[in-house]
Amino acid sequence: MRLLGQALAQQIDVELMGPAVGFSIDQLMELAGLSVAQAVAREYTPATHRSILVCAGPGNNGGDALVAARHLRLFGFAPTVHFPKRPSKDLFVNLVKQCTAYGIPFVDEIETPLKSSQLVLDGIFGFSFSGDIRAPFDSIIRTLKASPVPIVSIDIPSGWNVEHGNVGGIGLEPEMLVSLTSPKMGVRGYRFKHHYLGGRFVPPALAEKFSLNLPAFPGTDGIVRLDDVVEGEGPAESAKI
Amino acid sequence: MRLLGQALAQQIDVELMGPAVGFSIDQLMELAGLSVAQAVAREYTPATHRSILVCAGPGNNGGDALVAARHLRLFGFAPTVHFPKRPSKDLFVNLVKQCTAYGIPFVDEIETPLKSSQLVLDGIFGFSFSGDIRAPFDSIIRTLKASPVPIVSIDIPSGWNVEHGNVGGIGLEPEMLVSLTSPKMGVRGYRFKHHYLGGRFVPPALAEKFSLNLPAFPGTDGIVRLDDVVEGEGPAESAKI
Repeated sequence: MRLLGQALAQQIDVELMGPAVGFSIDQLMELAGLSVAQAVAREYTPATHRSILVCAGPGNNGGDALVAARHLRLFGFAPTVHFPKRPSKDLFVNLVKQCTAYGIPFVDEIETPLKSSQLVLDGIFGFSFSGDIRAPFDSIIRTLKASPVPIVSIDIPSGWNVEHGNVGGIGLEPEMLVSLTSPKMGVRGYRFKHHYLGGRFVPPALAEKFSLNLPAFPGTDGIVRLDDVVEGEGPAESAKI
Repeated sequence: MRLLGQALAQQIDVELMGPAVGFSIDQLMELAGLSVAQAVAREYTPATHRSILVCAGPGNNGGDALVAARHLRLFGFAPTVHFPKRPSKDLFVNLVKQCTAYGIPFVDEIETPLKSSQLVLDGIFGFSFSGDIRAPFDSIIRTLKASPVPIVSIDIPSGWNVEHGNVGGIGLEPEMLVSLTSPKMGVRGYRFKHHYLGGRFVPPALAEKFSLNLPAFPGTDGIVRLDDVVEGEGPAESAKI
């Protein structure tokens, strides 16, 4: 597999939604979030991990988390969402409405709900993240790190440098990661208890163009389990566009 | 299950995309089309039914078919699309772009491609259809009816009256039906070789409000196999809104 740096991940997103391929963000986010929910349901059951605290950030990673919350609800889990910084875009306003219509509660803080959660879904930051972790996400990440509740991260564990990994150890340490499109450089060599690839929507020709060497998804599954340690090309030369 | 008449199916759609639930057509169509593709792949394999002629009409049923074509391509099938009446809306323009980016060919007539197809996916008319079958769909339906290639219909076999079934025998006679949201009144008592319910996106509260009595979808599946003959409430009194 080709591990993606920030610029290449961004470029693939732009191509997927550009004039040649023509996907809408609604379509891609729906498939991404659905695959995240499917991966969670593959490793955890409502019998043991019914209460899931979903932490959504202000970008598309947060949107993926909101979609995943909705599907998890249909799969028999009981998600609760913390979404402290909400974009004014219709897309996000509507994702919140959908969750509410599904009976999913939203909470203003995570300390209390975390105590009664069996799992955390981390959709705080995605592949666009860089720089410092600003409030309120600094304290959210600290709280999650101090908790024994296992974490599932979407695409990249929040707080990690997308290309260089958990620099300074300030990021989350999830027991499961669901990479989208293709794993990011930052997770190279890192061992997760469970690692899945989701986001089965890359046109074969685009995968070829970028030499992604994606693994085969079995049957009609939207997810494929990856080896515990991701190897592959990258980071420096090979991932240049 | 509660069988849906035209007005109720329309009302549920309006509610799903209304201010309370907030779904976009892109989201619903993606999930619907994905479920259709999953159902097809459950009953047919690329080894025996690789070439699929996808007949798309000018409405949302056609859009579902275009989405299904894309997913079928990823599942290893080789769909070819006939889409003679194309709406100018961005949604449909982009669905065509997506199929093209996936390497799916579009054809201007069906006589020749039908000869080399092992399966037909019928997305010509959906639950909004009423009145006469106009050109070019009258001749398309006649051609499909005269062919031995098995047909999978989306939501309602094209040419059927949504509430009264295959009136006058002018409609398609599919060996498989993928109902969306809930089966339509017109299929009551009709035996399909395979019948699935797809479109797993109805909020539990909305299903309750309309007394849909939907069957349980297994695990994370987007589809559930129904009994060969659909019974249930309807048509006349019980399906009044």
